[in-house]
Amino acid sequence: MDETTDELMEATYVALCEHGYAALRMKDIAEETSKSKATLHYHYDTKVELLYAFLEYLYERFERRVDEIDGETATERLVALVDLFLTPRREETGEEFQTAILEIKAQGPYDERFREQLRQFDRLLLDRFEVIVEDGQESGEFDADVDPAPMAEFVVTLLNGAQTRTVAVGRPTGRTGEEFAEYVVDLLRAEVPEEVSSP
Amino acid sequence: MDETTDELMEATYVALCEHGYAALRMKDIAEETSKSKATLHYHYDTKVELLYAFLEYLYERFERRVDEIDGETATERLVALVDLFLTPRREETGEEFQTAILEIKAQGPYDERFREQLRQFDRLLLDRFEVIVEDGQESGEFDADVDPAPMAEFVVTLLNGAQTRTVAVGRPTGRTGEEFAEYVVDLLRAEVPEEVSSP
Repeated sequence: MDETTDELMEATYVALCEHGYAALRMKDIAEETSKSKATLHYHYDTKVELLYAFLEYLYERFERRVDEIDGETATERLVALVDLFLTPRREETGEEFQTAILEIKAQGPYDERFREQLRQFDRLLLDRFEVIVEDGQESGEFDADVDPAPMAEFVVTLLNGAQTRTVAVGRPTGRTGEEFAEYVVDLLRAEVPEEVSSP
Repeated sequence: MDETTDELMEATYVALCEHGYAALRMKDIAEETSKSKATLHYHYDTKVELLYAFLEYLYERFERRVDEIDGETATERLVALVDLFLTPRREETGEEFQTAILEIKAQGPYDERFREQLRQFDRLLLDRFEVIVEDGQESGEFDADVDPAPMAEFVVTLLNGAQTRTVAVGRPTGRTGEEFAEYVVDLLRAEVPEEVSSP
């Protein structure tokens, strides 16, 4: 990723937070850079092309941050991944950014390329949660009877809901982290082995 | 609700499914009615005014359907309420309608009146789920240690996520119903009382 791309992507982030997806114009993005609108058009034909590149850029950064997650136990890694997803990269523009992303999600049925990019995020999260659940089962931390794939779907659905409610009704995303800790970890927790008793 | 209002609301539903929220024009709605665009403007100044009325109309119908829910047990009522929320009113336009609603949710931060209307739906669901959890605790069906209000928040967050993922990545909403049955009912189920044993 060269310096110009990096600058354009950062400018897209700022302009998207300020104007939202629907109202965003190439001009708004150019205004956040040292470049002219013509330079912007030299790199990207249209606003939508630029946003495809932006989602790709976001995905690469998100994947890197996901891969950096560590934690002694599967429970710690689970909670860290939820926190990573729910915590805005920049506190001051968190809600604006989530709103723009929700607008892009609403483009899913109309734009196959956006949908494919959104599926990339979805699959990354599903895959990582599934691995964490499996790890926790191997270590004896999590209940071996839980099926990892549907549990991962459940968690990803919950995270999507947290983002949506933040935007729609203004519910703080952090509250979902707390609910998550309470309920999902409860569902996963390995039962303390019962003493062998007569049937 | 008079006949004209009813016709205009149905036309709004159809036009919203066809065009989405952002692209929708008063003209598109008028075309779905026997009325002229002038008549439409006589009743509602702008598209946004009409959509406020439409959300109010949806809310009244949704509240009626929620109040009609019955079921012998709290578990049955819980599952019925989830199904009601996740099952589109009209199968053939389910995804289009959810998409338009997601677009409106993304207006939450920009439009206080939309946000207040969205909160009405949110509160109705929270309230009804809370009552069902309490009922189940009274009847001994559900674990008395579960706190009804955060559990209701958890369920409503999950339902929001199911709708969002349907739109964003095309995941069938019905799958959330199955996950729900498995996990949430699991969290709520009253433990079979253990035999009293020495500490």
